[in-house]
Parts: sequence; structure tokens; C-alpha cells
Amino acid sequence: MQVAVIGLGSMGFGMASSLARAGLAVTGFDVRREIVARFAAEHGKGAASPGAAAAGADAVVTVVVNADQTNEVLFGANGAASAMAPGAVIVSCATMAPERARALAKAAEALGFLYVDAPISGGAIRAAEGTLTVLASGSPAAMTKAEPVLGGMAAKVYRLGDEPGIGASFKMVNQLLAGVHIAAASEAIVFAKRLGLDIAKVYEVITASAGNSWMFENRVPHVLKGDYAPRSAVEIFTKDLGIIEDMARSHTFATPLAAAALQMFLMTAEAGMGKDDDASVARLYAQIAGIELPG
Amino acid sequence: MQVAVIGLGSMGFGMASSLARAGLAVTGFDVRREIVARFAAEHGKGAASPGAAAAGADAVVTVVVNADQTNEVLFGANGAASAMAPGAVIVSCATMAPERARALAKAAEALGFLYVDAPISGGAIRAAEGTLTVLASGSPAAMTKAEPVLGGMAAKVYRLGDEPGIGASFKMVNQLLAGVHIAAASEAIVFAKRLGLDIAKVYEVITASAGNSWMFENRVPHVLKGDYAPRSAVEIFTKDLGIIEDMARSHTFATPLAAAALQMFLMTAEAGMGKDDDASVARLYAQIAGIELPG
Repeated sequence: MQVAVIGLGSMGFGMASSLARAGLAVTGFDVRREIVARFAAEHGKGAASPGAAAAGADAVVTVVVNADQTNEVLFGANGAASAMAPGAVIVSCATMAPERARALAKAAEALGFLYVDAPISGGAIRAAEGTLTVLASGSPAAMTKAEPVLGGMAAKVYRLGDEPGIGASFKMVNQLLAGVHIAAASEAIVFAKRLGLDIAKVYEVITASAGNSWMFENRVPHVLKGDYAPRSAVEIFTKDLGIIEDMARSHTFATPLAAAALQMFLMTAEAGMGKDDDASVARLYAQIAGIELPG
Repeated sequence: MQVAVIGLGSMGFGMASSLARAGLAVTGFDVRREIVARFAAEHGKGAASPGAAAAGADAVVTVVVNADQTNEVLFGANGAASAMAPGAVIVSCATMAPERARALAKAAEALGFLYVDAPISGGAIRAAEGTLTVLASGSPAAMTKAEPVLGGMAAKVYRLGDEPGIGASFKMVNQLLAGVHIAAASEAIVFAKRLGLDIAKVYEVITASAGNSWMFENRVPHVLKGDYAPRSAVEIFTKDLGIIEDMARSHTFATPLAAAALQMFLMTAEAGMGKDDDASVARLYAQIAGIELPG
């Protein structure tokens, strides 16, 4: 099976590598030429445009930042859709509003392609291992055609419905919780420091208590080590919580927790930490209060 | 060892029973006479006042609602402190502000008693099993004297420091996270319903994803079953998040996430659900939006 992977960032590079390891013929594209060259040297072939990468491909996996970029690499100049094999399937992995996923699917179907709305979860390490979780929705025909691709990149594929947009909705619900939990973890750990507590001990106690969350457990160690090298950047959550707020407003649905969390991520970006690890929200709380954290 | 347990509510009754099972001579007191009678019949002895329960006791465990009630049952009319054995230890389990714990300890020590600041975590089932978690702080002498009591009620005792108030601070940090996570779980699950998703499937996907929290996993099943019989009531969190907001203000420390969560718990109580299960915050979101949840 011939596959193009468009977007070789921290997720896409690992996914493309996993697909190559799974025996698929993978061609990668990214706007950064050096990344394309590295991918070609290590795992497969590289191309100079999305269209060149997708020439004759049976499946195109898009792993770019958002809906606009997905639209551009598929349907823009030298886009993948101009070159894919007839009846090929698009596997769209960027996090986006459900209505954008539905619109992209409609555009793809109008050109005779299949479309799987396939946001991913799991981080760069699991991408490289081929053990992501995929929140997939799409027609049975699209899901069947995409099966070898989904199987090569994921340990778990949730089949959430026949309509594109359902996968995107599940992802946004996850991102609402993830964003609130990172902001809450940041608020709690700096509050603990303000109370004079040993925050390493707080981590030990909370992770064994009812106040725990996946994000508290995963992100607070970054704070304890003072290590804000980006595994997932603050900007991801200004984007994703922004999409949630747009969706909530368009559904006339108030989300006070997500709104408060978005403001904290925005302040963190505003203070110059947008490209740093999302645990930097804790640095923002500490900076405001004049509290010293490790590192 | 002779022990008085003051407060036989959903936590205290189970703790007193666990202590009796562990071989201690337990006398229970509660303002509800029928509960005292039930405890006496099943597990030990009952008394008609805190002082009567504490007569000659080596340890007094207070499991009442807050600092004011703890102060009253210890130092009020017919309070435990008027009757305890010289050098007895007080094990104070109510959730309260650290400064209140410090003041109670000082009052106890002035009368020649020992004091362990010992907020608990784990819920009624673990209280009845004697497998709670205790977030303890107090002098080495107080901790040693309290050891058989703590061992009889808990599977895990964290020794967090020599000063009363440290245990209380750890508990408040946990409650900040717990309260935010319940409100976030409520917001997310009703938002998911608003988006037209199958919320049982949302539960399955989120509990396996980075958006998970202990509270999401524990409370959302109440929403899925439409069962709001109180395991832990909304009023617990209007109280605890209220204490957190008081503490935060007195430390000039902003807690926007906890503040947003408190407003949602207050609205839920305001709408008449204060004594219902804390997952009722989801009912409030649904009620505002005119969305139907199970049950």
C-alpha cells in the first residue's frame, strides 16, 4: 500500500516511521526540507510538495496543525488531492472543530475520495512506537480502506460513528478536560508552594488521592524538575481551548471552567512562554506571585 | 486502648466500626440518638454527649463537618476535653483551613493534650473497611500516641510534618483539584451531550485518554445512571472550595479555576441540589441548557 504522510512534526515523523516499519510504502512531506531529508534517509521517501508526496497514493495521512493547514495541503496549490489515486482515502489527524472536519470530508467526497476523521491522542513517544489512540469516524468504506494505515500507527482505534466530525467532537471533549486539568494542576501546585508545602510530597500524595488526573500525574514532574522543554506546547492549548470556546459559543453553551483555563494559557503565552511546555502555566502562576519553583 | 469517636456520619460510623474491629474499646457520639443506638448495638458503646463519650479516653477522634463543630465538640459545653484522660490525643479529621487546625492544636496543648491534624480521604466504603488514607501532621509524641487509632482506620498514613496545619494544607490542595475536576467532568459530559455524542462512549474513551481524572472516572457513572443519591454532597464542595477561596484571598493568591468551580457548585446548591450527590453539577449544566440526561 502506498501512503503519503503530510506533516513530519513531533507526531507525524513518528507516525510515518511507524507506517514504514509496518511495511507500507511511505512518502513524507513537510515544509522543512531538512526534516524531509532525514525521513527519506531513515525510513522511506521524501517529496517537495503534498501533491508530489501523494502521487498515486492509496492513502494520505495529514498531521498538520489545524483545519486551515489540512485544507491547504489537501486542496491548495500542489495539494495532495490533485495527485492521489482515484478512490484513495484521506486520514485527517489534526485537531479541529467538527464542522471543519465535516466540510473537509464533503470536499474530499466531491472529488471521489474517502475521508476518515481521525484525531489522535498519545504523544510523540507513542507516535514513534505506532501505539497511538485514534478517535475515528467515517463511512464504513473509508474505515475499511484506512484500516492498514490506522493499524500501523495505533494500538487502539475507536470507531465512533459513520459521520466525519464525531471523532473531532470526541477529541474536543478530551481537550476541554486536558486543558482544564493542566491549568488546575498548575494552580494547585503553586498554591501548595505558597502554603509552604514540600511540592514533591504534594505530588506523591495527590497522585495517590482523589485529586489526581492524568495531566497532574504527567505534567507536574516537569515543574518539579524545572524542565519546560516542549513535549506539548502552551500554543496547542490556546488553539484547542479557543476552538472549544468557539464551539461552545456557537452552541450557546457556557463553559466557565474551560474559559478560565483558556485565560491562563493565554496569559502564559502572553508572558512569552507560548512555545514552551504546557506545564509553563505553573511558571506563570509562580511568576505572578513572586514564588520560586525548581529550575 | 479506650477511644471516643465524635461524629457518626457516613465517614465516622465506618471509622468507629473499623476501630472496634481492630480491638479498641470504642464509644461513639453523634447528635442523632438513633445513630448512637445503632452503633452501640452493632459495635461498641454509645454516649449522650462528647464529654460522656470521652470520659477517661486515651484518644478522641473527631469526624464532624468543620472547624467550628470540631471546636464545639472538644471545648464546648460537655465537650470531650472536659473528660479525656490526662495526656490523651485528639485525632482531628474534619477538613478545615490550616490556621484553624493550628488554633485547635494550641488550645488542646494548653490543656495538656496531644493533637494530630488528620484529615482523611477515601470515602464511606473505605472508612467502613478501615482502609482510609490519612494526611497527618503533628508532634512525634502525638503521632506515636495516635498510632493504634490511625492504624485501625487507615491503609495509608502520610506523615507530613511535625506541625498541625500541614495535613490540613495537603487536604485543601487535594480538594481544590477534586472540586475543579468534578466541575470540569460535569461541563465536559454535558457539552458532549450538547454535541450529540453518545455519553457512555465518551466515558469509555475519556477514561482511556489523557483527559481522564480520578473524579471523572468516579463521578460520571452517577450521571450515566441518573443516580444522584449523595455519596458526597454538593455542600461539601461549596464548603471546601469556600475555604480554599478564603485561604487564597488571605494569601493574596488568585485561583481562577477553583473560583469558577466554586460558582458552579454554588449554582447547583442554589438550584436546590445542595444535599444531592456532587455529580449534580452536571444536572445543573444540563438544566440550564435544557438538555436531557439519563434518569
